[in-house]
Amino acid sequence: MKDVAARAGVGLKTVSRVVNEEPGVTPDTAARVQAAIDALGFRRNDSARLLRTRRTASVGLVLEDVADPFYAGLSRAVEDVARSHGALLFTGSSAEDPRREQELVLAFCARRVDGLVVVPAGDDHRYLTPEIDAGVATVFVDRPAGRLNADVVLTDNAGGVREGVAHLIAHGHRRIGFIGDLPVIHTAAERLRGYREAMAAAGLQVAPEWYTMGPTTPDRVRAALASMLSGPEPVTALFAGNNRVTVTAVRVLSGQPRPIALVGFDDFELADLLDPAVTVVAQDAPGMGRSAAQLLFRRLDGLAPPEPARVVLPVRLITRGSGELPPAP
Amino acid sequence: MKDVAARAGVGLKTVSRVVNEEPGVTPDTAARVQAAIDALGFRRNDSARLLRTRRTASVGLVLEDVADPFYAGLSRAVEDVARSHGALLFTGSSAEDPRREQELVLAFCARRVDGLVVVPAGDDHRYLTPEIDAGVATVFVDRPAGRLNADVVLTDNAGGVREGVAHLIAHGHRRIGFIGDLPVIHTAAERLRGYREAMAAAGLQVAPEWYTMGPTTPDRVRAALASMLSGPEPVTALFAGNNRVTVTAVRVLSGQPRPIALVGFDDFELADLLDPAVTVVAQDAPGMGRSAAQLLFRRLDGLAPPEPARVVLPVRLITRGSGELPPAP
Repeated sequence: MKDVAARAGVGLKTVSRVVNEEPGVTPDTAARVQAAIDALGFRRNDSARLLRTRRTASVGLVLEDVADPFYAGLSRAVEDVARSHGALLFTGSSAEDPRREQELVLAFCARRVDGLVVVPAGDDHRYLTPEIDAGVATVFVDRPAGRLNADVVLTDNAGGVREGVAHLIAHGHRRIGFIGDLPVIHTAAERLRGYREAMAAAGLQVAPEWYTMGPTTPDRVRAALASMLSGPEPVTALFAGNNRVTVTAVRVLSGQPRPIALVGFDDFELADLLDPAVTVVAQDAPGMGRSAAQLLFRRLDGLAPPEPARVVLPVRLITRGSGELPPAP
Repeated sequence: MKDVAARAGVGLKTVSRVVNEEPGVTPDTAARVQAAIDALGFRRNDSARLLRTRRTASVGLVLEDVADPFYAGLSRAVEDVARSHGALLFTGSSAEDPRREQELVLAFCARRVDGLVVVPAGDDHRYLTPEIDAGVATVFVDRPAGRLNADVVLTDNAGGVREGVAHLIAHGHRRIGFIGDLPVIHTAAERLRGYREAMAAAGLQVAPEWYTMGPTTPDRVRAALASMLSGPEPVTALFAGNNRVTVTAVRVLSGQPRPIALVGFDDFELADLLDPAVTVVAQDAPGMGRSAAQLLFRRLDGLAPPEPARVVLPVRLITRGSGELPPAP
């Protein structure tokens, strides 16, 4: 605001009047202030008394969908760390829409959050540079930022799928299917890479009809799986790219005449009580949220090294039955 | 702030200096301002420029635990309605701690939220009266406010349990157990009432060892169920008071030598794929969140009648197998 006042050659009070649309400013002066605002990229701050140098004790969390159990667990962990630092949490779901992600992030910044934990939907986060420069600590989680060097907490996605697919191969499978999320999603692309690498490492050729990427809606997953299970060379095993795919796959496979092996990425409640119990590559959703939030507060407290950190959390293969089924004859 | 200034006989700027702990105020004046603040119950507002008469386009949501699938679904629905009204969402989990609920609610009010959606943990919400009087629209959801007449959106808890228990009775059960949450929780007390009423309506006496209320941790539920299933007159069926109880009950019952019928309150993912598939009394978590948030914005927009509204959403019995098992001989 000081810069705007200096550039327009007016006092702070005049800038304040223009920004708040208060009377007492001539049209000429208002135009000069507006020009200075435009030139400097000044953004109206809804709580301008909260200067950037003073903490607001609030943090913004942008998820894909809080109703997804994976993100619900991550969300609670971020909240608990924020609480231990006396900070409140703004939350919002991007629904995988990059515009909605940006809208939420900038709205949180306009409320002067001290920091952000973001599960990115978009692939270009340069819009955040002015906020980060202004002191908004930002940690990406689950997926890295696009075109921006920033703190990030990830899961070993490719490594986890490699381990799960190698497990299926070790149980005699050669024709293994893979159903993943939209290929623009970092985790989905990484998991597909893990699948390809595991197949290649075992000297297995991947037929194009064995893998498919797209929305993880039940209809899409049903159709994809039906197609993999038909034809002259049907798959004998499936790697499900996330918990949404696994849940639909369990439904489809329970209705199949012959047993199909299944390994899913992400653990889920009651997986051990299904018949067969579901073998999964488990990631630690609360651990990711905790790790991201702790990194955020270390950065806010000046306790993190200046260069952005990259944390990769390990996964865990949990064998329960479905991933140990032999290929159907 | 004007009232404080008038009472202390100082200017607004002096009040601001005292509140913000800025220099330039004599100890005498500071003491006079502080006395006026105490007398008037003035609360420091972190974003004082956002006057109460101006909307901040933010809403606070206090849940019990966002990691619980029931609340995760409710949370997403509140967020979606808020978004459609251009409002951001603060969220927080009370973890069933009344002090934590109050702390969150007042912290949200200090940030000048326009409204609150609260799943109450406590039983005395008179602390909210000044906020509601100051214009903070407040809707309680899942449980009513305590000692405060306020908007509320509920589920038909007692009616739902009556229907579920009557269903077990219709399938030949006479010794029916009930495991509920802490009795101080409104929904838990209502569900216990439904159990008692259904048993009484069928002329069945309830033995004290057939029902138990307490934390829904796996250990507690395991122990409670083990005790109901032992002794000379074990129960032949169980009504599980919420989804946390049902999930543990499914685990315990799957290891029993004889089949025990089960009806659970709350639906849950994959309930239909368990063996037996689980019969539930389903409540509509997103519907509750949506209904509460819509009521909140109607009230903010002056479109709700002045007297507090009480909305009770119906439940739905979904028969899948576990609730239709006959009593084991």
